[in-house]
Amino acid sequence: MRAFAMLKIGQTGWIQKERPACGPLDAIIKPLALAPCTSDIHTVYEGALGDRQNLTLGHEAVGVVDEVGSEVKDFKAGDRVIVPAITPNWRTHAIEEGVPPQHSEGMLSGWKYSNIKDGVFAEYFHVNDADMNLALIPDGMTLEQAVMIPDMVTTGFHGVELAKVEFGSTVVVIGIGPVGLMSVAGAVLRGAARLFAVGSRPLCTEVARKYGATDIVNYKNGDIVKQIMDATHGHGADHVIIAGGPAEVLEQAIYICKPGGVIGNVNYFGEGEFLRIPREAWGVGMGHKQINGGLTPGGRVRMERMASLVMNRRFDPALLVTHKFHGLDRLETGLELMHHKPADLIKPVILV
Amino acid sequence: MRAFAMLKIGQTGWIQKERPACGPLDAIIKPLALAPCTSDIHTVYEGALGDRQNLTLGHEAVGVVDEVGSEVKDFKAGDRVIVPAITPNWRTHAIEEGVPPQHSEGMLSGWKYSNIKDGVFAEYFHVNDADMNLALIPDGMTLEQAVMIPDMVTTGFHGVELAKVEFGSTVVVIGIGPVGLMSVAGAVLRGAARLFAVGSRPLCTEVARKYGATDIVNYKNGDIVKQIMDATHGHGADHVIIAGGPAEVLEQAIYICKPGGVIGNVNYFGEGEFLRIPREAWGVGMGHKQINGGLTPGGRVRMERMASLVMNRRFDPALLVTHKFHGLDRLETGLELMHHKPADLIKPVILV
Amino acid sequence: MRAFAMLKIGQTGWIQKERPACGPLDAIIKPLALAPCTSDIHTVYEGALGDRQNLTLGHEAVGVVDEVGSEVKDFKAGDRVIVPAITPNWRTHAIEEGVPPQHSEGMLSGWKYSNIKDGVFAEYFHVNDADMNLALIPDGMTLEQAVMIPDMVTTGFHGVELAKVEFGSTVVVIGIGPVGLMSVAGAVLRGAARLFAVGSRPLCTEVARKYGATDIVNYKNGDIVKQIMDATHGHGADHVIIAGGPAEVLEQAIYICKPGGVIGNVNYFGEGEFLRIPREAWGVGMGHKQINGGLTPGGRVRMERMASLVMNRRFDPALLVTHKFHGLDRLETGLELMHHKPADLIKPVILV
Amino acid sequence: MRAFAMLKIGQTGWIQKERPACGPLDAIIKPLALAPCTSDIHTVYEGALGDRQNLTLGHEAVGVVDEVGSEVKDFKAGDRVIVPAITPNWRTHAIEEGVPPQHSEGMLSGWKYSNIKDGVFAEYFHVNDADMNLALIPDGMTLEQAVMIPDMVTTGFHGVELAKVEFGSTVVVIGIGPVGLMSVAGAVLRGAARLFAVGSRPLCTEVARKYGATDIVNYKNGDIVKQIMDATHGHGADHVIIAGGPAEVLEQAIYICKPGGVIGNVNYFGEGEFLRIPREAWGVGMGHKQINGGLTPGGRVRMERMASLVMNRRFDPALLVTHKFHGLDRLETGLELMHHKPADLIKPVILV
Repeated sequence: MRAFAMLKIGQTGWIQKERPACGPLDAIIKPLALAPCTSDIHTVYEGALGDRQNLTLGHEAVGVVDEVGSEVKDFKAGDRVIVPAITPNWRTHAIEEGVPPQHSEGMLSGWKYSNIKDGVFAEYFHVNDADMNLALIPDGMTLEQAVMIPDMVTTGFHGVELAKVEFGSTVVVIGIGPVGLMSVAGAVLRGAARLFAVGSRPLCTEVARKYGATDIVNYKNGDIVKQIMDATHGHGADHVIIAGGPAEVLEQAIYICKPGGVIGNVNYFGEGEFLRIPREAWGVGMGHKQINGGLTPGGRVRMERMASLVMNRRFDPALLVTHKFHGLDRLETGLELMHHKPADLIKPVILV
Repeated sequence: MRAFAMLKIGQTGWIQKERPACGPLDAIIKPLALAPCTSDIHTVYEGALGDRQNLTLGHEAVGVVDEVGSEVKDFKAGDRVIVPAITPNWRTHAIEEGVPPQHSEGMLSGWKYSNIKDGVFAEYFHVNDADMNLALIPDGMTLEQAVMIPDMVTTGFHGVELAKVEFGSTVVVIGIGPVGLMSVAGAVLRGAARLFAVGSRPLCTEVARKYGATDIVNYKNGDIVKQIMDATHGHGADHVIIAGGPAEVLEQAIYICKPGGVIGNVNYFGEGEFLRIPREAWGVGMGHKQINGGLTPGGRVRMERMASLVMNRRFDPALLVTHKFHGLDRLETGLELMHHKPADLIKPVILV
Repeated sequence: MRAFAMLKIGQTGWIQKERPACGPLDAIIKPLALAPCTSDIHTVYEGALGDRQNLTLGHEAVGVVDEVGSEVKDFKAGDRVIVPAITPNWRTHAIEEGVPPQHSEGMLSGWKYSNIKDGVFAEYFHVNDADMNLALIPDGMTLEQAVMIPDMVTTGFHGVELAKVEFGSTVVVIGIGPVGLMSVAGAVLRGAARLFAVGSRPLCTEVARKYGATDIVNYKNGDIVKQIMDATHGHGADHVIIAGGPAEVLEQAIYICKPGGVIGNVNYFGEGEFLRIPREAWGVGMGHKQINGGLTPGGRVRMERMASLVMNRRFDPALLVTHKFHGLDRLETGLELMHHKPADLIKPVILV
Repeated sequence: MRAFAMLKIGQTGWIQKERPACGPLDAIIKPLALAPCTSDIHTVYEGALGDRQNLTLGHEAVGVVDEVGSEVKDFKAGDRVIVPAITPNWRTHAIEEGVPPQHSEGMLSGWKYSNIKDGVFAEYFHVNDADMNLALIPDGMTLEQAVMIPDMVTTGFHGVELAKVEFGSTVVVIGIGPVGLMSVAGAVLRGAARLFAVGSRPLCTEVARKYGATDIVNYKNGDIVKQIMDATHGHGADHVIIAGGPAEVLEQAIYICKPGGVIGNVNYFGEGEFLRIPREAWGVGMGHKQINGGLTPGGRVRMERMASLVMNRRFDPALLVTHKFHGLDRLETGLELMHHKPADLIKPVILV
């Protein structure tokens, strides 16, 4: 079968691979819609995960079940499914300990696609533990909506969870690419009142407002910390969600966050040996500014719950989709868009 | 001054009272808008709080500050303010212990108006600890919106908090009078996906849908437990909010709630010596169906946060207001509407 | 093989059964030590679980692994293991939802032994999902200590968890049989300062003091609610743990609990259609007295953690063991002791 | 009156000051026992709080009430009281928001003594809001025990709270000066099983074992991260409490903490512009290693609860007191001991 792969750092291309084998708990999926992610760019062009050769790219997919293992009970060939980017092993010692399933076999171990196994950009791909990791695409959901759920929606919403947004609180979302926009939508759905979106691209700020941002903060207009502290009369934010940006955004978040506030990070920090906490702004260690950072939950129920929000019209992730292409062959086009990020791009989708 | 009071159980009327005195931390308020509440009906006609004579009624008000005490810093005469129904003493031993401020001087002690002191249905009324208990009416907020905040909004939203609604969860709201309708709106703003509203009055079910209910359950169509269990394929609800009804609704809530689910009650149970928990449905004591019940938080920040949600257009409480009257004299008309609940009533407001 | 079984309601006896078969994830255990439980008495003599015929009794066991399934990785024949009373299926939709694993296939479904499958009072017994449900007996732990862990320790400690005990708080434990005594020990290990133990048997009160109870409350000296309210100058308890008693103890717990306090129940309520909440003492529904009730967690990590507490000398469960017998044949003697509860009994153990 | 003060950075001495004036809610205290703290050393010799001239030192005191304001209800002259190091204003907007009272008027604002007002090393000192901030010394408590409560006990225990220790978990306490030793004692009282204490001074490690440490880790024996990872077979700690050390300890804590674990810091980080988070060990931002850091709670109830733990014999803080002196004049001796930390010192106390 054909697969679109990272050949080595800095180089992608189509290669031939064996169709993956299906274990007793597993399923083989034929994609219906795929989306390239900034993470794929990190992986290929920045070597963020280290050198990988002939590793199939991609972790955002919806598809049709092609084959299921002998022990799979709830899915069958022909089912149309959402495949989470994060597909944990749900039966481990760590799970019993209360470690988030995302890390059930070691830190970040739930992130398998295009990391520790081949990704979803292929004619067929494999999913472990189908009953625990697949969710049906609800009737009436478009493929564009569905394919935003495996990563963009759930990751953006997890930022909101990590930041512990409350009714009527003031929230800042730093970074309003597609994940951050979902943090904006999610913060509204957790009760944010005033909602600052930090970003500079006109299209993204426009969509941020549609999702419920009340204030746009553009770093081109000056220090974002100062802008937000001024706008809140020195109070700062109750909750800060980091959904994008370089290492410095964590420092900014600590300045912006009030004592007793919470910072939730879902950003993948890709560079440097250290992130930095400004000592005094963090209360010399005693300011009660909680710092959380975590990989999104994955798995079946998470997908079902995100899908249920969409189907019950709580928000529409399709606003993220600025570009649609038809045919697996257009994956390269999509990936290049994510690489170069033209002004009219939020997220491209490839309909297979 | 004139005050509309409970003369004795079963009888109301206008009486003359002294304008209240203002302590150093306190304020005297002249009402701009008032709303009668079902609780007032309980108080007068059912003697729910016991016999009270010549007690001024009412606990839902917005007004203009007429006088402030010598120690009040943040408010001055002429300020237009929201007055919470619950006005705790914020400086007590219990607060330090982590007891909710609503109970800071004993259970339910934060509920002062028309309970342990004169209520707000008068030419002037008193508020304790003005700096901690008053909130400014934001510019641009209508009085109809504002006067829903002191009790209807905050109580309905507290039901959502007590039930610990999560992203994408299935929620049931039992009782869709004005408080329950705010629980519906609030549940959406905490991430409810599927949202059952249990009620029978056509106007209320219509407004429930506007606030985001996805399924209406009417007891006239049969046992509500069976209806909800069928509709959820035996799963039940993740979260149940009780916002109205007789003692039996607690029993129903326990049947509907899944193991590991949470019940949040903001209903005032007015009758009987006991509420009942169905033993087997509660897992013979071991089913992990958490039962929470609590008086709404009050105070300044709570009002500010609810107001901020309204001003940032997260929801509009004015949909509750079906009847408006002008002039203090119309209080009696409003109260009688709450007493008899005609089909076209959700909530009346008296604009003074 | 021989098994000690409930023949029918009210009658026990030895019967012959097939040695259980071992599935690929499972293990077959040969008991080293067994303990009868009050629950066994409920099951046999009160028919609490309904009529069962020839159902092997018992759910408290430690043993030696006799056989493991082909997929078991962490255990092998000859390993000495603690077998939790609660052995969930760890790979279910409910687990993903955040339902406690105890209920992962329906309410109380984790309680399998002598309930939905044969119990442990036999020459061999079966455990599902060995890797997830067994724990090694640490070197140096006695069998008497070890066999208290599967139910007594973990259940007593779960009461403490459900009641959310905090540093320096005042705690009441109602019922000081072996589970309640473990709640006493556990409450100390969560920071209880003043600790009321409610019970009447001299031996139990003596052991309660050894585990850290500071005040003994005996119902024979009058209403326990009044005694505790007097002793706390009307404040009541911050946390109430119910570890035994008839339905009325829940009512008492609600009276004793302060507003903002928490009740944790691990008692199996065996009778009546309803439990009762005193309406006024529960703040007419709004007193913020949280009611939790739940089956203990089970599984491997839970056992490991309880065992680690014992091995690190945080408490010694062996104080519970008042009677020791040698030989499987003495099971009947042990069970009859639990039935008749002589004054010198807390818990009997059968060493096989 | 006489006061022992920081004259300027690097210099201390006795000066004359006015006896402080007593506001209506306040009290004036005459010390019975005082303890110098490492923080005093930071303040004087490192200028950690900036230059201060003639600022009375000290924040750990118990004493006798000399005078109370007109509005004080629960205390009177002659009462023997514990005075918390942290004495918040309990009636602020921030408190209503849920900001920890320690920060109720701005970050760290609850820390007043020897920071934003004169400290306790004087013949008399002032306490704001006596009813909310003082606690009676229980009958039978020694002054040595009592004077450990205002800072050492409560701060050490807060580290345990911030790290969210659970039953049977593995805990690391970094730094075992007097605060860290109280974290050790506190971790045991929250259910820690295995408990690593990181320190090198023989006296401190000996006392750590008495308080319940099971493993001592000495940096002189090699990298503490490696030692702990080896000892836990690569698992790491469930909870890490930072109670002392240079900026690097935060980095070590992140390495040691498992995914899903929690770090609680009560250390005052006194140097450098930034603290550092090792990027990869923190899961490139997504490892779910929560970082909490906070100033201890203060106030009356906190002191009462810590005192109740002592009086109910849950632990004995007097093990910390290695040196006792009599007479206010010996303050200088005590302070110099904290400055130079001889091998036989944990904590000195001055009995006045």
